[in-house]
Amino acid sequence: MGEFELIRQFFQPLAAAGGSSQLLLGPGDDCAIQRVPPGRDLVFSVDTLVEGVHFPERYSPFNLGWRSLAVATSDLAAMGAAPVCFTLALTLPEANEDWLSDFAEGLAKASATFGITLAGGDTTRGPLTLSLQVHGTVREGEALRRSGAASGDLICVSGTLGDAGAALAFLDAPSPSDMERAVLEQYHVPQPRLTLGQQLVGYASAAIDVSDGLLADLQHILDASNVGARVQVNKVPMSAALQNLEGNKAVNLALTAGDDYQLCVTIAPEQWARLPGSVQAELTVIGQIEASPGLRLDGGQKNVQTQGFDHFGRTV
Amino acid sequence: MGEFELIRQFFQPLAAAGGSSQLLLGPGDDCAIQRVPPGRDLVFSVDTLVEGVHFPERYSPFNLGWRSLAVATSDLAAMGAAPVCFTLALTLPEANEDWLSDFAEGLAKASATFGITLAGGDTTRGPLTLSLQVHGTVREGEALRRSGAASGDLICVSGTLGDAGAALAFLDAPSPSDMERAVLEQYHVPQPRLTLGQQLVGYASAAIDVSDGLLADLQHILDASNVGARVQVNKVPMSAALQNLEGNKAVNLALTAGDDYQLCVTIAPEQWARLPGSVQAELTVIGQIEASPGLRLDGGQKNVQTQGFDHFGRTV
Repeated sequence: MGEFELIRQFFQPLAAAGGSSQLLLGPGDDCAIQRVPPGRDLVFSVDTLVEGVHFPERYSPFNLGWRSLAVATSDLAAMGAAPVCFTLALTLPEANEDWLSDFAEGLAKASATFGITLAGGDTTRGPLTLSLQVHGTVREGEALRRSGAASGDLICVSGTLGDAGAALAFLDAPSPSDMERAVLEQYHVPQPRLTLGQQLVGYASAAIDVSDGLLADLQHILDASNVGARVQVNKVPMSAALQNLEGNKAVNLALTAGDDYQLCVTIAPEQWARLPGSVQAELTVIGQIEASPGLRLDGGQKNVQTQGFDHFGRTV
Repeated sequence: MGEFELIRQFFQPLAAAGGSSQLLLGPGDDCAIQRVPPGRDLVFSVDTLVEGVHFPERYSPFNLGWRSLAVATSDLAAMGAAPVCFTLALTLPEANEDWLSDFAEGLAKASATFGITLAGGDTTRGPLTLSLQVHGTVREGEALRRSGAASGDLICVSGTLGDAGAALAFLDAPSPSDMERAVLEQYHVPQPRLTLGQQLVGYASAAIDVSDGLLADLQHILDASNVGARVQVNKVPMSAALQNLEGNKAVNLALTAGDDYQLCVTIAPEQWARLPGSVQAELTVIGQIEASPGLRLDGGQKNVQTQGFDHFGRTV
């Protein structure tokens, strides 16, 4: 079997399985075709992962398949969009059957879990690099942007922060402790907050997913909205596992580590009051938007780092 | 100035210039937003180019910018779609200001020429690799697919074939001859047949762009349509420059070399008769679809190669 056939064999089932009714034509032609329903806007985002930069060398291909789709799909969550389909541009040094099989399995599992179908792609030979573009839809004009935060809005985050960052220290641990296993799970198989994102449409004034670190990502909202913020550091939610870390490590990670793929949103108090209790329960209020530019931290230890992690820069 | 700012400086103008009214939100948020007009389908395609595989090392960054967008946009032409916007996933070993400036200039010139606006992207550090995803729209249900060819349809190609393939032999020639300059132009700054593709909607039964070589690409139509074909080799259009080559070189290149980005389409004779004369004039009839599977060559020299060029395989 040629490399061409080998690769097709692993990816074809992802395109066929549980396709969205919006996807009129999947892989195999010059283009894929999507029919966006009336009254919906298309939202889309591309993310690239490079071996040795965004994931370790010899990283588990199953986890890579899951993680790469989770990372990309998280941007749909941040816009409040319902996932539809994705493309995969995969550059590989060689067509290794075991690697492809495990990678396709991780990707297929994520695809089924998130409800997003493979629509097309390109496979080329070269250093291991993946670019995934995800497509979703949202009610016309209602996508959550970074630019809508206003003075007085509450700043909220979902879940707990810092676990995936803590995991970086022992990705290769041969026999991880219970605490280590808990945070490793957050790193290897992140769960984008797709349902929550959609529930916040019509309520949140601005949203972003926490991929570079809370302070860095909140700063993107402040820049886009031309406002400032005050954050209560001791309210930033952390897992029990993370809180076991010594000194300020936990809070530093919760404020500055990326890769958790939780949401950070701003909500006007009157909208918060309207929000169903079940959605409120998914969020923790950590601060408030202020008119004066700048990000002010209250109640934290003195030596909190204030720089997010930035891989070369997401730019255009 | 940081790398982040440097890159933004070069790409931001591409996003701002002549944006499509469909692009409600461009780069800078978690996702871009496109509003597809009622009665139109979205078509999209991704293409990856790797240094040393799809273009030579130390290739002109201006030409790379043009070529990468031309190659990707050609897939929209093959579907009969009108271009709207594109994303760029750019992996770079370093943020070199001169390189970025020239690359962005080539990309901007292609973007303005093809009428397609930068909608978003991702920039990462690593071996030089580009993935471009292009978006276009076409009237609902009327996209040109590979699967519609039927027995009796005429097989037509646009322009002339083989020039870009001939250029590969002297990409680095220090002082190219006139003939070499003519075919080098085809390689460095290919012109996707966007207008022609749109003019063929409602007439052509199947279409593909010639990126891997005429025989290989026509075979994709035959496979998708479950038919065969007979091609008159002496009718395959070649430029005057190409015909200067010795022996069978010219016809071999015209049949098997990729990178010209012309269109190969099938049209039922009654549709051909309806086609405006100005559109007929852009096409050369080179053969006919037959019910019996297989690709038969008439009137050619004996030693015609019948394998298209395949980089690792475009697969999913």
